Amino acid sequence: MLKGIDPILGPGLLAVLREMGHGDEIAIVDANYPAASAGPLLVRMEGHDATRVLDAILSVMPLDEFVPDPAIRMEVVGEPDRLEPVMREFDAVLATHEPDVVVASLERFAFYDRVADAYAIVSTGERRLYGNIILKKGIIRPEAG
Amino acid sequence: MLKGIDPILGPGLLAVLREMGHGDEIAIVDANYPAASAGPLLVRMEGHDATRVLDAILSVMPLDEFVPDPAIRMEVVGEPDRLEPVMREFDAVLATHEPDVVVASLERFAFYDRVADAYAIVSTGERRLYGNIILKKGIIRPEAG
Repeated sequence: MLKGIDPILGPGLLAVLREMGHGDEIAIVDANYPAASAGPLLVRMEGHDATRVLDAILSVMPLDEFVPDPAIRMEVVGEPDRLEPVMREFDAVLATHEPDVVVASLERFAFYDRVADAYAIVSTGERRLYGNIILKKGIIRPEAG
Repeated sequence: MLKGIDPILGPGLLAVLREMGHGDEIAIVDANYPAASAGPLLVRMEGHDATRVLDAILSVMPLDEFVPDPAIRMEVVGEPDRLEPVMREFDAVLATHEPDVVVASLERFAFYDRVADAYAIVSTGERRLYGNIILKKGIIRPEAG
């Protein structure tokens, strides 16, 4: 483990998050998601639910301020406006790290298409349906000198 | 880059530091050091001097509190008590992160032998002679609950 870094961020995920640059995307997906076949680099975190992984990732990764939708969840099939408990928990986690971000949403197959272009995908042990969210990485500005 | 993590810690070195456990050692070595032939996993950081790399590593990696010598430098050949400027700078960096640690020292070939058993070695662009130090990783305790 390392000082000041969430212990659930293992060597592989830490490296992936550090490798990502401005605009690269990472998806956090639930246990039903077709993660291994999705295409992007796969990190397995089946010991944690998606909201816990979201919290860990946002503790070190800034979201993109240059776009209106740096966080995107999957919509309920046939009920795009329905908010499941896991979605409300995503919102609560976002609020603690990125209070200005409003989570956008995509229909199921549009979400799959978007994830296919992501840099990485984190497969979690999340059992709640629709526990899927895409994050777009932002920037760290130079320290004021 | 990531929030709160020194930007010179790239994906590879971050992963290595996170992979290491209690008692594992990492060596930071100068540009003359036989690093590639030393044996341990090699991370190249030739754009930085050894003291800068030491500062970055100690910003996330705790030193071992269970041993008297969690930091060990190489001694000047034939003058084991001589303190070179780079050694004094190592001490100053250590003092900011691990104020209780006194840097121990090893004769050149004993230092090589010790590094051969390390988990990893970081080859820096350090041009000052004797810019070599071994660090033994410590622990992070559970948060008080």
